[in-house]
Amino acid sequence: DFLNALQEVKSAFGASTDDLERCRLNGIIDCGSRHEHIKQRAMLLAEQVRQSRGSPLMTCLLEGPSGSGKTAMAATVGIDSDFPYVKIVSAESMIGLSESTKCAHIVKVFEDAYKSPLSIIILDDIERLLEYVAIGPRFSNVIAQTLLVLLKRLPPQGKNLLVMGTTSEVGFLDSIGIRDAFSVTYHVPTLRTEDAKMVLQQLNVFSVNDIDSAAEALNDIPIKKLYMLVEMAAQGEHGGKAEAIYSGHEKINILHFYDCLQDVVRLL
Amino acid sequence: DFLNALQEVKSAFGASTDDLERCRLNGIIDCGSRHEHIKQRAMLLAEQVRQSRGSPLMTCLLEGPSGSGKTAMAATVGIDSDFPYVKIVSAESMIGLSESTKCAHIVKVFEDAYKSPLSIIILDDIERLLEYVAIGPRFSNVIAQTLLVLLKRLPPQGKNLLVMGTTSEVGFLDSIGIRDAFSVTYHVPTLRTEDAKMVLQQLNVFSVNDIDSAAEALNDIPIKKLYMLVEMAAQGEHGGKAEAIYSGHEKINILHFYDCLQDVVRLL
Amino acid sequence: DFLNALQEVKSAFGASTDDLERCRLNGIIDCGSRHEHIKQRAMLLAEQVRQSRGSPLMTCLLEGPSGSGKTAMAATVGIDSDFPYVKIVSAESMIGLSESTKCAHIVKVFEDAYKSPLSIIILDDIERLLEYVAIGPRFSNVIAQTLLVLLKRLPPQGKNLLVMGTTSEVGFLDSIGIRDAFSVTYHVPTLRTEDAKMVLQQLNVFSVNDIDSAAEALNDIPIKKLYMLVEMAAQGEHGGKAEAIYSGHEKINILHFYDCLQDVVRLL
Amino acid sequence: DFLNALQEVKSAFGASTDDLERCRLNGIIDCGSRHEHIKQRAMLLAEQVRQSRGSPLMTCLLEGPSGSGKTAMAATVGIDSDFPYVKIVSAESMIGLSESTKCAHIVKVFEDAYKSPLSIIILDDIERLLEYVAIGPRFSNVIAQTLLVLLKRLPPQGKNLLVMGTTSEVGFLDSIGIRDAFSVTYHVPTLRTEDAKMVLQQLNVFSVNDIDSAAEALNDIPIKKLYMLVEMAAQGEHGGKAEAIYSGHEKINILHFYDCLQDVVRLL
Amino acid sequence: DFLNALQEVKSAFGASTDDLERCRLNGIIDCGSRHEHIKQRAMLLAEQVRQSRGSPLMTCLLEGPSGSGKTAMAATVGIDSDFPYVKIVSAESMIGLSESTKCAHIVKVFEDAYKSPLSIIILDDIERLLEYVAIGPRFSNVIAQTLLVLLKRLPPQGKNLLVMGTTSEVGFLDSIGIRDAFSVTYHVPTLRTEDAKMVLQQLNVFSVNDIDSAAEALNDIPIKKLYMLVEMAAQGEHGGKAEAIYSGHEKINILHFYDCLQDVVRLL
Amino acid sequence: DFLNALQEVKSAFGASTDDLERCRLNGIIDCGSRHEHIKQRAMLLAEQVRQSRGSPLMTCLLEGPSGSGKTAMAATVGIDSDFPYVKIVSAESMIGLSESTKCAHIVKVFEDAYKSPLSIIILDDIERLLEYVAIGPRFSNVIAQTLLVLLKRLPPQGKNLLVMGTTSEVGFLDSIGIRDAFSVTYHVPTLRTEDAKMVLQQLNVFSVNDIDSAAEALNDIPIKKLYMLVEMAAQGEHGGKAEAIYSGHEKINILHFYDCLQDVVRLL
Ligand SMILES: Nc1ncnc2c1ncn2[C@@H]1O[C@H](COP(=O)(O)OP(=O)(O)OP(=O)(O)O)[C@@H](O)[C@H]1O
Ligand SMILES: Nc1ncnc2c1ncn2[C@@H]1O[C@H](COP(=O)(O)OP(=O)(O)OP(=O)(O)O)[C@@H](O)[C@H]1O
Ligand SMILES: Nc1ncnc2c1ncn2[C@@H]1O[C@H](COP(=O)(O)OP(=O)(O)OP(=O)(O)O)[C@@H](O)[C@H]1O
Ligand SMILES: Nc1ncnc2c1ncn2[C@@H]1O[C@H](COP(=O)(O)OP(=O)(O)OP(=O)(O)O)[C@@H](O)[C@H]1O
Ligand SMILES: Nc1ncnc2c1ncn2[C@@H]1O[C@H](COP(=O)(O)OP(=O)(O)OP(=O)(O)O)[C@@H](O)[C@H]1O
Ligand SMILES: Nc1ncnc2c1ncn2[C@@H]1O[C@H](COP(=O)(O)OP(=O)(O)OP(=O)(O)O)[C@@H](O)[C@H]1O
Ligand SMILES: [Mg+2]
Ligand SMILES: [Mg+2]
Ligand SMILES: [Mg+2]
Ligand SMILES: [Mg+2]
Ligand SMILES: [Mg+2]
Ligand SMILES: [Mg+2]
Repeated sequence: DFLNALQEVKSAFGASTDDLERCRLNGIIDCGSRHEHIKQRAMLLAEQVRQSRGSPLMTCLLEGPSGSGKTAMAATVGIDSDFPYVKIVSAESMIGLSESTKCAHIVKVFEDAYKSPLSIIILDDIERLLEYVAIGPRFSNVIAQTLLVLLKRLPPQGKNLLVMGTTSEVGFLDSIGIRDAFSVTYHVPTLRTEDAKMVLQQLNVFSVNDIDSAAEALNDIPIKKLYMLVEMAAQGEHGGKAEAIYSGHEKINILHFYDCLQDVVRLL
Repeated sequence: DFLNALQEVKSAFGASTDDLERCRLNGIIDCGSRHEHIKQRAMLLAEQVRQSRGSPLMTCLLEGPSGSGKTAMAATVGIDSDFPYVKIVSAESMIGLSESTKCAHIVKVFEDAYKSPLSIIILDDIERLLEYVAIGPRFSNVIAQTLLVLLKRLPPQGKNLLVMGTTSEVGFLDSIGIRDAFSVTYHVPTLRTEDAKMVLQQLNVFSVNDIDSAAEALNDIPIKKLYMLVEMAAQGEHGGKAEAIYSGHEKINILHFYDCLQDVVRLL
Repeated sequence: DFLNALQEVKSAFGASTDDLERCRLNGIIDCGSRHEHIKQRAMLLAEQVRQSRGSPLMTCLLEGPSGSGKTAMAATVGIDSDFPYVKIVSAESMIGLSESTKCAHIVKVFEDAYKSPLSIIILDDIERLLEYVAIGPRFSNVIAQTLLVLLKRLPPQGKNLLVMGTTSEVGFLDSIGIRDAFSVTYHVPTLRTEDAKMVLQQLNVFSVNDIDSAAEALNDIPIKKLYMLVEMAAQGEHGGKAEAIYSGHEKINILHFYDCLQDVVRLL
Repeated sequence: DFLNALQEVKSAFGASTDDLERCRLNGIIDCGSRHEHIKQRAMLLAEQVRQSRGSPLMTCLLEGPSGSGKTAMAATVGIDSDFPYVKIVSAESMIGLSESTKCAHIVKVFEDAYKSPLSIIILDDIERLLEYVAIGPRFSNVIAQTLLVLLKRLPPQGKNLLVMGTTSEVGFLDSIGIRDAFSVTYHVPTLRTEDAKMVLQQLNVFSVNDIDSAAEALNDIPIKKLYMLVEMAAQGEHGGKAEAIYSGHEKINILHFYDCLQDVVRLL
Repeated sequence: DFLNALQEVKSAFGASTDDLERCRLNGIIDCGSRHEHIKQRAMLLAEQVRQSRGSPLMTCLLEGPSGSGKTAMAATVGIDSDFPYVKIVSAESMIGLSESTKCAHIVKVFEDAYKSPLSIIILDDIERLLEYVAIGPRFSNVIAQTLLVLLKRLPPQGKNLLVMGTTSEVGFLDSIGIRDAFSVTYHVPTLRTEDAKMVLQQLNVFSVNDIDSAAEALNDIPIKKLYMLVEMAAQGEHGGKAEAIYSGHEKINILHFYDCLQDVVRLL
Repeated sequence: DFLNALQEVKSAFGASTDDLERCRLNGIIDCGSRHEHIKQRAMLLAEQVRQSRGSPLMTCLLEGPSGSGKTAMAATVGIDSDFPYVKIVSAESMIGLSESTKCAHIVKVFEDAYKSPLSIIILDDIERLLEYVAIGPRFSNVIAQTLLVLLKRLPPQGKNLLVMGTTSEVGFLDSIGIRDAFSVTYHVPTLRTEDAKMVLQQLNVFSVNDIDSAAEALNDIPIKKLYMLVEMAAQGEHGGKAEAIYSGHEKINILHFYDCLQDVVRLL
């Protein structure tokens, strides 16, 4: 069933730091070849850093729509790399701090990384680290400048570092020069109908007859939204059905599923 | 009569925190199917959170014109959910505080919620929490960033949280990315003629002959404005009539009612 | 004569707080039916608050051109209501204070009002309270947010409050949402020719032959400007005539009156 | 001769406060009927304030091009009024002070005036008091708000006040509502050819043949610039002629005068 | 030779304050009639101030393209005037100071000047004193206001002051009203071909055959850039030639000179 | 092989300060005649400063696209000049400092330089020193003003200084007047196909057959990006090939190289 599927996928990854695991609340499921390809290229960068002679610093940006799986992918690279120092920098742990304290925190993470021969730093949701809002736009230039310098500053002799950033506002990062400060940028996509179908099959919560139409309706959905939607639909129209669905005794009512889809998907 | 009707509706809700009750000064009256439908969907989200395995955090935005009943509805879900922790965050209790103190206050409410297995937080009048004015526009980015992070941050293992926001400035929330930070958004509408008629019948302050024309005149009025208007009209042209009207001895003069309507409804 | 007329009108109002009286430097004279109608509607709101069950808070905005008599009218309602707590909030008493001190002062007035069963608060010249200038425009958002919250916050159980605002910048108040925060808005007009004539007759400073042409020239003048103009004209072309005019021994020279009018009325 | 003429005009005014006298460095010469007319109207306002019953506060703005004689005229009214309290508020004495200290200073001058039965306050170069620059435009809103309130605030019972402002940026004052805050506004003009001729005749530094062409060339010059230009021309092409000219032994070379005129008058 | 020529020109000026001398690093060479004319007019203003009765304050702005010799010219007037107090106010000596400290410094220089019967103050590079950048534009309004007041404030009785400003951003000074605050403005031009030729002849570093084509190429060059260019060219293509050229043993290679010219002159 | 080539090039430069050497992580390789020409002109400026009599201060800006070799070239001039004082001012060593502390640091470097008879100061990445972002644009005017003054201020008698700046935002520097504050500006270009081919031949990591098509694909690449790209490609499609390639046992797979190129080169 659905929840067990989640558990299985998760447990396949062995021990790793808690912070990184929390980034993959629903585990890692096969999301199709495009997701897979990007993950492999990112792992190759980790490899390059590990064996580096001429490039002690590599930087890579994962950009894509909200919920497309960027953070989970970066966390996965961090976990799979087996580097001694892997750290995620996130706005969650810096709520309410002043701009300069945030800067100090970020710089500290880099200084710590410089002490390890092999390090990965994940700058999660860079637009949030920068306190970005589209109106204005407003953002913290102090933090932006700090990132711009850190993304270019070489680690000390013999230390090697991979920096991975994630963002769903690549246009903004471009406009302030942070996108260009990364050596490479990969686009993490939403799910196409065929990807969505594969995911739904793995979750096993729809009847065989409904799975095609459900997948069709889900074209271009981000993986994170798909998970949330399935949970909503599993409740049933009047609540209380979730248990039965996850245990495999019942299947999701496709009409109620369409209803939930409409609540979630915003029509513009 | 009108006031007793209010009392009846109110007392139907049993004991609940005072703060939430104050949000329903005029109780909850049947406002038609569209209001009802939204309330049920919101209750279903509470249900999903209660039974959650994969979605410990659900977020839901109630948006609609000023006075359409958003706050009363959110309060009602909070009361009816029977969750151990239900808290409303409102600008009223934070007048004159600095942006950072407001942030601290908001964060505190979330931290408290994280200690309860089941919690509801109502972010009332989000544009007011954000100190929004349309000119500029101006608003507190510090508070906006705090909300953006809190609306995405997962509660600790085993804790589950429903966040409900209300706003009459959904366009603004959209422009700063806060609307998209909510999983679902529901539109709380004004009253259509048929809804208004039903409400007037329950209030019983018009003569049978006038009720249709009164309801007609009220098309598209928000429920809150309807209550205020009825009170104004009940005064009578020269004051002093209220008692007689509420006790059922007299009915509202329809012509005076039209007069009051013109004072209240702004013609653009 | 003119000055005695002033005195008479003034003394007709009996004892009342000095602050409110100072708002009616020239007393209250009959300015025509439109002024009168607005005053009555405002008194009715006071009545509604007095007898309120469902609407413990009423808010009313008096808007109109500079000098049309808004402040004097609000003061008159405050005096005539006989409410135990009537307070005027004005920029005059807060010159040079910081925004936050002004906020504190305003909040204090509301807190005090919440202790009285029946209160009236006059927010005089709201654009001035908000430190508004058209260029930019600039204004104090801190104070604006405070007013927006206070205009919506319910008094405690059993306390009832009427808030009256005055402004000559209703377009600005509209653009920042403060106009909509008031339940009702009334427009206080300038004097039409017939109103001006009536006022001039009461003042008795023109010869019977001149009064019609004088009133004609005054079409659309605000009452406050009319008073100032009459005083200027009463001086005479070379000064020193005022005594004679006010005592009724002489009348204002209509040609000199036209001269003064041109100094005062700005041609665009 | 020129300098004696200056002395004569000056000594005609008798004793008066030094500050006010410094505003008339070149004394007061007859500048034509338009200047004279304005001065008389301003004196009439002082008269109205002196005898006031209904208008304890009069406010009057003198606006006009740079150097047209506004400050000197206001100072003259102040001196001629014989009011016990006459004070000039000028940016010169507040260089480098903070906005709030400047406000305090201005408020203090008004408070002092409120203690005298009859007072005149001259707000000199209001745009400079407001720290105005056209780019932006930028200015001190704190000071602007202070002036807006002070220009409307009534003196205490029995005290009467005339406020005179001067400005060469009336368009700016208009845009921030300060022009409208004055009861009356007078335009102080530059010199027309006939006015300039009259002034030159009084100064007696040109030969009779040249005076017409000189005056012709000076059409539309402000009185202050005329004085400066005459001093420049009196130096002679190689310097050292001033003594001879002022003593009447020589006359200004009209060609050199034209040269100087071109240096001073900016062609756009 | 070139360097001796420099020395000669310099030593012709006798003793003077070091600060002023540093402003004429390359001495003063004959730059043609237009430069000369401006210098004489400026000297005449000094003369006027010296003998002043009616104009104790004269102000004069030297504006022109970067390097055209404004500072050197102002310094020269300062030196040649033999006034007891001559002071240059420059951004160089105020690097890193706050706006208000800079103001205080500037005010201090004026206060000191007011103690001397005859003073000259040079406000060098006014746009730099104002911390001007074209983007925005940004500048210090605090300092701008200070200058605007100081340029109009009369020295005490019996003290006379000439203020000379220099700027290469006259358009900006105009837009903030500082240009108009000066009594007169002179334009310090670049060198026309004939001026450049005359300068090159004095420097004696080109062969007679080349001097015309060199001067032709230098049309419209500022004198300061000409000096720098000659030094660059004197190095020779491979360095090391300077000594030979300045001592007169060799002449500058005209082709290399063209090369250097292209590096220096920016083609747009 | 590639890495040895790097080593060789590096060791050719002998002892020099570590800071400057770090700026040439991949040594200096022959990048074609255009790079070479610029380096020679810059060296000539150092020569001019060394022998200066009339120009104790020379300033030179190296501008060009990101990674084109500006910093390495400036460092090389610094090293090759053999001047006693050579200092690089870079944002890396000032992360998180306030604007004024940064200013103080920069001023300190200049003050130190003024103590040495011959100095070179490298202002690296001036847009970063200025905390520039394109949005707005925003930047530190305090630092900009400091640079504008320092780039014009003469060293004390007998001290000579060459200032070299680098930037990849020459348009921005132009818009704030900093480009014009430099005496000369040189454009450091990307590699043309023939330059790229020469570099690839020196690196010796492609098979002879591939080198032409590889160079063709690299047209207009900056030298720094070329190094990074070669390292990526050397990893091989599945990682682990780097050793074999650098030791010369294998060559880079041209197809994989094209793949990497696409990741790195951004198509707009
Ligand atoms: N193959 C996969 N790749 C990425 N995420 C996956 C995959 N399979 C399952 N998931 C789940 O999908 C979710 C992806 O959410 P994630 O937070 O990574 O998205 P995101 O793009 O970072 O979103 P946001 O834009 O909000 O930051 C996670 O809960 C993760 O466990
Ligand atoms: N079915 C109902 N739903 C909502 N409100 C109701 C209902 N029946 C009666 N009411 C009354 O209508 C009023 C609704 O006002 P409420 O403050 O909730 O509106 P709102 O949309 O939050 O307004 P605002 O935009 O000003 O915040 C309350 O007084 C409430 O008691
Ligand atoms: N019927 C009346 N209504 C209002 N004011 C009257 C009336 N009769 C006489 N007055 C006098 O007219 C003047 C009105 O001035 P008031 O300050 O109230 O105008 P305002 O509209 O508030 O002006 P502002 O826009 O400047 O605030 C007062 O002096 C008042 O005594
Ligand atoms: N009739 C007159 N009216 C005004 N000024 C006169 C008159 N006769 C002579 N003057 C002289 O002309 C000069 C006017 O300068 P004043 O400073 O008053 O002009 P202003 O308009 O205030 O200039 P600014 O716009 O620079 O403030 C003074 O020196 C004054 O002595
Ligand atoms: N006749 C002259 N007039 C002015 N400067 C001259 C003259 N002859 C030689 N010079 C030299 O030319 C240079 C002029 O430079 P100066 O700094 O005065 O120019 P500037 O216009 O102030 O430049 P900037 O716009 O950069 O401030 C000085 O070195 C000066 O010694
Ligand atoms: N001839 C050369 N000139 C410059 N750099 C070279 C040359 N040969 C090899 N390199 C190497 O190329 C790289 C150039 O990078 P550098 O940091 O100087 O570029 P940049 O233009 O300053 O980049 P950025 O715009 O990011 O500051 C250095 O690693 C340097 O070792
Ligand atoms: Mg993410
Ligand atoms: Mg609400
Ligand atoms: Mg008023
Ligand atoms: Mg003046
Ligand atoms: Mg200069
Ligand atoms: Mg660089």
